[in-house]
Amino acid sequence: MYTLHIGNKNYSSWSLRPWILMRELGLPFDEKITPFHVPGFPAFSTFSPSAKVPCLHDDGTVVWDSLAIAEYLAEKHPGVWPRDAKARAWARCAAAEMHSGFQDLRNTCGMNVGLRIELPAIAPGLQANLDRIAALWTEGLQRFGGPFLAGPAFTAVDAFFCPVAFRVQTYGLKLPKPALDYVQRLLALEGMKDWYAAGLQEPWRDGPHEDDVRRSGKVLEDLRAV
Amino acid sequence: MYTLHIGNKNYSSWSLRPWILMRELGLPFDEKITPFHVPGFPAFSTFSPSAKVPCLHDDGTVVWDSLAIAEYLAEKHPGVWPRDAKARAWARCAAAEMHSGFQDLRNTCGMNVGLRIELPAIAPGLQANLDRIAALWTEGLQRFGGPFLAGPAFTAVDAFFCPVAFRVQTYGLKLPKPALDYVQRLLALEGMKDWYAAGLQEPWRDGPHEDDVRRSGKVLEDLRAV
Repeated sequence: MYTLHIGNKNYSSWSLRPWILMRELGLPFDEKITPFHVPGFPAFSTFSPSAKVPCLHDDGTVVWDSLAIAEYLAEKHPGVWPRDAKARAWARCAAAEMHSGFQDLRNTCGMNVGLRIELPAIAPGLQANLDRIAALWTEGLQRFGGPFLAGPAFTAVDAFFCPVAFRVQTYGLKLPKPALDYVQRLLALEGMKDWYAAGLQEPWRDGPHEDDVRRSGKVLEDLRAV
Repeated sequence: MYTLHIGNKNYSSWSLRPWILMRELGLPFDEKITPFHVPGFPAFSTFSPSAKVPCLHDDGTVVWDSLAIAEYLAEKHPGVWPRDAKARAWARCAAAEMHSGFQDLRNTCGMNVGLRIELPAIAPGLQANLDRIAALWTEGLQRFGGPFLAGPAFTAVDAFFCPVAFRVQTYGLKLPKPALDYVQRLLALEGMKDWYAAGLQEPWRDGPHEDDVRRSGKVLEDLRAV
């Protein structure tokens, strides 16, 4: 049985990636949430050598990076990446580009699933990131026929862009229609609905994450229950 | 025949990763250098959908991310990752951690193989990155027996840390002895010596890259020939 350590569902974009991948592929796992900076919870370093989430434990093997988790699972289960070699190469490029890039989107639009935020303006760096995401998604959807990025099935490349779907929702980001339709498809996944609902119920607030979001724009709504 | 598009050898840390991987594994490729911001050379966007280097072309398949290149090659050639499953999981985690992280090291110590720089001080974020690198390398070297990070052979995880070796050399970064010994082993590879020598001979200077380095510290030596 896999154990997947994650952070707050409201904030942790990195945690969402392997979580939604495993959920959508139907791979059973034991979920362990450790919220950011809450006394009484263990430090991330007690279960992850990089002191970061997510971290997968599999019978003594510790896999401490989201993309490495995808590759680890891909060796054991079908469906993590597309079966077609060209689609698989494309999917790995797009997921790895997300893994290392899109700094402006990350910095300006920190994931906070329960808030709705109005950005005062779209800075050029953020717009460039959005343009690249639109181009990448459009290419994948057209080339491999949709409804997911690399073809008919949800694979790891979709999982890597699931946090972007929540960001688009929180910040009302503008994208071309095919890209916004894809966002809606991601948000409608059972796993995404469950993650979202759980995020709204979390009682924890993390100062740095809250500050980042409020620095970026004006809070229009806070849908969190607690 | 593979074609690998790269940027300047003096600057492009991302390009070095697949280049040294293919060199050390003995995979033949046609190297195409496009320097940063030099009139007369094509824009990166003409050969790479992300407009970034590196980018591998293989008979119509375009693989535009360094880590995705490693996985693409791993499907076709032995030796990209360690053969042992536990070493392979570890190697993928360490490479992916480098791929997405170590921002302070990247920002403060931009790769510039031909310069020797004195940093005025080591900021806490940079020290945290160096501590993590030392811990990671020490763990790999001890656990898998060396002389490379995941065992007896040079694999993709070593390729991902080759740019760090040049950074340690350029900035005189302090690391524990086993980590510095590993840096020396990387710098002594034939491929690394060839890359370094070629970098010193490049005639191009890129303003943003040069400015970054000079903002970080004092130039002690410029070993570039031209």
